[in-house]
Amino acid sequence: MKSSDYPMISVAEAWRRIEAQLRPLPPTPHILAGAAGLVLAADVVAAEDIPPVPTATMDGYAVVAGDAQPTRTILAQQAAGSADAPPVTPGTAVRIMTGAPLPAGADAVIPFEETTETDGMVTVAGSVSPGLNLRPPASDIGAGQTVLAAGSRIGPPEIGLLASLGQTTVMVHPRPLVAILSTGEELVPPEVTPASGQIRDSNSLALAAAVTEAGCTALPLGTVPDREPALRSAILDGLARADGLLTSGGVSMGVKDLVKPLLAELGTVHFGRVAQKPGKPLTFASVGGKPVFGLPGFPVSSLVCFENLVRPALRLLAGHIALWRPEVPVRLTHDIRRDRERLEFVRATVDAIDGVLWATPTGAQASSRLASLVGSDALLRVEAGPDYAYAGDEVIAILTNRPERASR
Amino acid sequence: MKSSDYPMISVAEAWRRIEAQLRPLPPTPHILAGAAGLVLAADVVAAEDIPPVPTATMDGYAVVAGDAQPTRTILAQQAAGSADAPPVTPGTAVRIMTGAPLPAGADAVIPFEETTETDGMVTVAGSVSPGLNLRPPASDIGAGQTVLAAGSRIGPPEIGLLASLGQTTVMVHPRPLVAILSTGEELVPPEVTPASGQIRDSNSLALAAAVTEAGCTALPLGTVPDREPALRSAILDGLARADGLLTSGGVSMGVKDLVKPLLAELGTVHFGRVAQKPGKPLTFASVGGKPVFGLPGFPVSSLVCFENLVRPALRLLAGHIALWRPEVPVRLTHDIRRDRERLEFVRATVDAIDGVLWATPTGAQASSRLASLVGSDALLRVEAGPDYAYAGDEVIAILTNRPERASR
Repeated sequence: MKSSDYPMISVAEAWRRIEAQLRPLPPTPHILAGAAGLVLAADVVAAEDIPPVPTATMDGYAVVAGDAQPTRTILAQQAAGSADAPPVTPGTAVRIMTGAPLPAGADAVIPFEETTETDGMVTVAGSVSPGLNLRPPASDIGAGQTVLAAGSRIGPPEIGLLASLGQTTVMVHPRPLVAILSTGEELVPPEVTPASGQIRDSNSLALAAAVTEAGCTALPLGTVPDREPALRSAILDGLARADGLLTSGGVSMGVKDLVKPLLAELGTVHFGRVAQKPGKPLTFASVGGKPVFGLPGFPVSSLVCFENLVRPALRLLAGHIALWRPEVPVRLTHDIRRDRERLEFVRATVDAIDGVLWATPTGAQASSRLASLVGSDALLRVEAGPDYAYAGDEVIAILTNRPERASR
Repeated sequence: MKSSDYPMISVAEAWRRIEAQLRPLPPTPHILAGAAGLVLAADVVAAEDIPPVPTATMDGYAVVAGDAQPTRTILAQQAAGSADAPPVTPGTAVRIMTGAPLPAGADAVIPFEETTETDGMVTVAGSVSPGLNLRPPASDIGAGQTVLAAGSRIGPPEIGLLASLGQTTVMVHPRPLVAILSTGEELVPPEVTPASGQIRDSNSLALAAAVTEAGCTALPLGTVPDREPALRSAILDGLARADGLLTSGGVSMGVKDLVKPLLAELGTVHFGRVAQKPGKPLTFASVGGKPVFGLPGFPVSSLVCFENLVRPALRLLAGHIALWRPEVPVRLTHDIRRDRERLEFVRATVDAIDGVLWATPTGAQASSRLASLVGSDALLRVEAGPDYAYAGDEVIAILTNRPERASR
């Protein structure tokens, strides 16, 4: 009756077109607390030495290493946080705690375990080398050193490093704010019992969770019917408030599928069909310089499209250099019939047996059947062809699950 | 001068003692939005069939498959969300959209592409099998089926599945709330310029980021000096408000190291020394039935202890079955001198070269030097011994970084 206006392009070509349209979001200052997961937009240069002065790394006695006398007079005690002990000279020592600055004159720390203390005097068993059990100035970080480069992902160690340098505000690419819109007359919110012909909107919540897991902030806009004025104003509203927009539904060939024509009118559609299964009608457009992904309405299709093409796009906006899930070669435990035209992403679990990774599809692969994604570890890339990928054949698995294991 | 009251135990024994004290937090209801990352505390059983009625999976015409006539009268149009089309009989058809319920009598859908429509009549090219392009009732999920088992981690597909079933409240193990306390006279907040002998508290922010990354909620309590009444009330306050407490500093042998004796007085210390490097003074106690980890004050030591023993403990509280980071065998690019007594966790980067994973330590491994953790991918388990782990030797790498890759 009618055919799509958009040529079918490969998944690789789809990514090239997405990548060509996107740039990391402009740098913005962010307070350090809460910056974990973000990406630095500028190099961080240390303004000072760490440590600024020689510092004890053990609890013990600060001494002059060259001092040959086994027994020394204890002058004082230097705790971490204080710096008022008198200078140490041959024949004397200062009791010192880990992290405390060395008193002037001292050049080594003898641990408590290697000493005996009696009546204000400390006796040392053996000889001592200069520099023992102390951190010299600038031994961790030197002033002027680039400690973190632009493009670094900020994790717990980076947070600690920045805090230790007093960098309580950092320049980052902001966390992308992603609006999410479900389209369709048939949708009711999850808490409503559907009437005949209606179904619950599950994509809004599932995509919001996927957006959050990708390190972005989700802005759920709810559902909108397949009617032009409502859909147009919801799309424009979402784009006015967010850095990008995901729609689900309304991109196949039905008479009510208004998303593609509306995006073509509001901006530029870069592609409207991709040779992949599930997710053939995936649509990507720019409207007012912001990316819009028109995802299919079937729950599995929308999440698989998100995983393969939207998640890396959002990571690119967030400034990440590492955009892609790990991929490993695996062997199939079952035959899989290839799609003749489209690359198929088959949901599977992966198990290591005698050092070989084996992948087992998670049952029926219907686009509607979320159970095929639930508990899966991987998407298998099964190339198009006239025949089968056979049990024992090697395919590439995209590892989509978090990597934690039940046994060490 | 004085020796620790606590015997040194192995890392494996430390984990056994931690595991013996902990149970997943008691189940609690949680709204579905925001439940991603949590763990189900009860099986979820479907209360209804999905789909409840036969549903079109393509846009096209709903027909009687056994009907031999090539041309049929179009009775009506059935969109997703409506269910008011008249019954289909031989000689008739209903135009139908993806997701719409099949009208009574119809048992197949012919896609638009395989038809021609003229003057209210549709002509079909070939023959049609019953069941073509439709989802039978209960084909995705049957009423009474256990769709998710207790212990399942809730991710985007699980959120979608629960939403499609109308399960907008789920029983989960709650997200652990973890109080964080830095101890030491010498600490100033990161935004303050330290006076002589003072240093910035970097552990509070770094541990808060690590707690958040582990899927828990951080409750930072700030810093407290090494004085008994202040430290006691801060510990008791933290435990009153949170599910567990992390302290950093105050666990070595210095005269001001009050954490261990205070925990012994307030509750039970399960261990106070571990044969690991860094992190020998790591302390684990129960106070009022809640876990307390006394982490060392050095930034690297506290984060490595967190990674190896605290993170799996927090995941256990959260109800996860998968507690552990992935571990893989790697080969060393450099010799590493073994510690004589302690298992060492060496910070390293890991690179695949010709199918072999090679690990390179990240420079000087001082406990104070956060730069050794920054940008690292892994902690190498280097067993204690009198000699070296040599370049080319195989060791186990704990993969601590997020797994994303820069190229596909």
